[in-house]
Amino acid sequence: MHTDPDYSAAYVVLETDAEDGLSGHGITFTLGRGTEVVVCAVNALAHHVLNKDLEDIVGDFRGFYRQLTSDGQLRWIGPEKGVVHLATAAILNAVWDLWAKQEGKPLWKLLVDMDPRTLLSCIDFRYITDVLTEEEAYEILQEGQVGKKEREEQMLTHGYPAYTTSCAWLGYSDDTLKQLCTEALKGGWTRFKVKVGADLQDDIRRCRLIRNMIGPEKTLMMDANQRWDVPEAVEWMAKLAEFKPLWIEEPTSPDDILGHATISKALIPLGIGVATGEQCHNRVMFKQLLQAKALQFLQIDSCRLGSVNENLSVLLMAKKFKIPVCPHAGGVGLCELVQHLILFDFISVSASLTNRMCEYVDHLHEHFKYPVTIRNASYMPPKEAGYSTEMKEESIKKHQYPDGEEAGYSTEMKEESIKKHQYPDGEVWKKLLTAQGN
Amino acid sequence: MHTDPDYSAAYVVLETDAEDGLSGHGITFTLGRGTEVVVCAVNALAHHVLNKDLEDIVGDFRGFYRQLTSDGQLRWIGPEKGVVHLATAAILNAVWDLWAKQEGKPLWKLLVDMDPRTLLSCIDFRYITDVLTEEEAYEILQEGQVGKKEREEQMLTHGYPAYTTSCAWLGYSDDTLKQLCTEALKGGWTRFKVKVGADLQDDIRRCRLIRNMIGPEKTLMMDANQRWDVPEAVEWMAKLAEFKPLWIEEPTSPDDILGHATISKALIPLGIGVATGEQCHNRVMFKQLLQAKALQFLQIDSCRLGSVNENLSVLLMAKKFKIPVCPHAGGVGLCELVQHLILFDFISVSASLTNRMCEYVDHLHEHFKYPVTIRNASYMPPKEAGYSTEMKEESIKKHQYPDGEEAGYSTEMKEESIKKHQYPDGEVWKKLLTAQGN
Repeated sequence: MHTDPDYSAAYVVLETDAEDGLSGHGITFTLGRGTEVVVCAVNALAHHVLNKDLEDIVGDFRGFYRQLTSDGQLRWIGPEKGVVHLATAAILNAVWDLWAKQEGKPLWKLLVDMDPRTLLSCIDFRYITDVLTEEEAYEILQEGQVGKKEREEQMLTHGYPAYTTSCAWLGYSDDTLKQLCTEALKGGWTRFKVKVGADLQDDIRRCRLIRNMIGPEKTLMMDANQRWDVPEAVEWMAKLAEFKPLWIEEPTSPDDILGHATISKALIPLGIGVATGEQCHNRVMFKQLLQAKALQFLQIDSCRLGSVNENLSVLLMAKKFKIPVCPHAGGVGLCELVQHLILFDFISVSASLTNRMCEYVDHLHEHFKYPVTIRNASYMPPKEAGYSTEMKEESIKKHQYPDGEEAGYSTEMKEESIKKHQYPDGEVWKKLLTAQGN
Repeated sequence: MHTDPDYSAAYVVLETDAEDGLSGHGITFTLGRGTEVVVCAVNALAHHVLNKDLEDIVGDFRGFYRQLTSDGQLRWIGPEKGVVHLATAAILNAVWDLWAKQEGKPLWKLLVDMDPRTLLSCIDFRYITDVLTEEEAYEILQEGQVGKKEREEQMLTHGYPAYTTSCAWLGYSDDTLKQLCTEALKGGWTRFKVKVGADLQDDIRRCRLIRNMIGPEKTLMMDANQRWDVPEAVEWMAKLAEFKPLWIEEPTSPDDILGHATISKALIPLGIGVATGEQCHNRVMFKQLLQAKALQFLQIDSCRLGSVNENLSVLLMAKKFKIPVCPHAGGVGLCELVQHLILFDFISVSASLTNRMCEYVDHLHEHFKYPVTIRNASYMPPKEAGYSTEMKEESIKKHQYPDGEEAGYSTEMKEESIKKHQYPDGEVWKKLLTAQGN
């Protein structure tokens, strides 16, 4: 569905006049074209954050969230979805980064240490109280206090389990696939995701190849990236059931709650769960996916929802419905961000690792000041203060559009991209733009 | 929810090198800030339409629709929702305007005269085939051929029934409300909509006032503009049931399909239906609202869905589920556009006027070259070729941002706006921007 991604991000920097000299960095991930539209929306929202005190913002974080998401005029072009919501995420991610830095803690630790009432005061419960009231949420957080210290220790020692999506993108040749899979097995990976949905025979061949390589015990997931209509999803997956996937991810439109419920119902007898969330646009949609039993694995995204604030509400609803959260990551910086949320989820909310793992994609980490640390196929808790959102100055200088020296490219799609699109790898933005007459 | 609208529109003009000298005009309605974000998205999508032949576009309109809505990179910041979808609507509205002009017909007539197979070739059935296949849609259109000529005559003679929302906005004083209501009654209006949801006692007073004025036989509708959570909506409406509203519109989040279903179920025994759609972002959401019995009145919008193409699919689904379509209108140009769609619906699809009517708001028509004609509280079919989307050159010159002479203002909120926001009515954009240092 996203055939020519050129991995990009809208990047927000909040500077203050405080003596600590700290700045907050927030991103939202994009696929290239359209980044400028998100940046335009960030600018349209900027007046809500300019000249404000951080203390006032986080002191009434629910109010601030509401202000951003219910701007009387901008609300019309959302609400709480698409471009304006991605822009909201970028701004709020920067606020959380700044807050965590001021507190001198990595974001996950800021959340873990936060008093439950304060945590709840960051959440806008509008439109979800029929499923989760503030009091129920409080009870969940109170329960989460039991054994919290031990779970934090466990995370610091062993990390949070991850799975890899780096081996089996659609464009890869079988040889590349084998090579990457061999390397991943050597690296200690036990959970693998393969992209499917373009061609059934091709899927069967590739899934067989991977299942044979990893053996029957290791975990295989499949990802269709919204390729199918509802009946097609059920038929197609029946044909891939023999390879024992744990889940099929994004089998159809991300908006189709009832469609996902139909697919779930049909696939449960085959032992296959439905996973979705990377394009689920807000807490109201997640609420319904849970109500309708439309998913068995819930995939939050750190940059599509309204930052930590909205993700907190989704983690709490998932806990209530006993659905494991397995975050979406990859892209640009999504691994860096979402690790904080899933660490908090384990330590303070879910208290379980059963059927839980966080996506990992091995690329573009080199642009971040505090890149993720993976050890034994697990995310090791970051120790630096903040939300790990800050990019290296050198990277920004190089890749900033349109003044940077270099056009970005998608590492993960590189093989295919070069072949298909002849994307001028190494070409510079300025040259490109000059050639286009801009 | 939209407390300070400054009615605006993103306006797209398609020019060609054809000898006929025709141009296509398309709009999408916005509330002020954020228009520039939609315009930015229009520019990002523009390469799909630039240097194309109209004949090629409409010759494979389904393919063109898919191309616009599934752009490999822009899809990420939607998909098919929010800013990019509003931009898609503006572009496609311009294409339909141009096509209708080239055919020398008003859009409704172009659709009515179109061969069913050609009509269907404009629709992208992706993600809705579990509810409506192309063959089912064809059967519906074939059925619609029976009596078509008579229904067209009926429309040309009597027009399509309308209701008015101009009397009872939240900001109006009781005196203003009485005056506007008296005028509307004199004008022959029999269907009235009142805004509710800010304050229960205020709602009771205003609904009583209007019901008393219009009497027990005329139709009253209520509109909450998404104010409530699900349980609140049910409680609130129980208190307003005595005023016998036909429907409650947008009782909660436009994304909450299951919430609307819960509210519908609770209100049906009270004789109140649920209406929604003006912020329903695509056909996949409408599909589910129908599947879940979440609405009793379906309100399409000509500028939020992907133009005529996507609205056609929704009209056909509504027909299958036997749900009346009562379009959303008002804003800037929404009345001008949507009248074409509802005329087509009656003549070629629904073949019924039972429980059906089209919203009418009496403002901003003066900016359009071919404004709507209302006679006896009915929309009279437009006769000029095109989609009635073309604005007067003078209006564009005056109001274009940021070069126009005059800042726009919301007619319908004028009273409140001036009081609350001291909006400098008559002030010029240039002066405003200079004062702001831009």
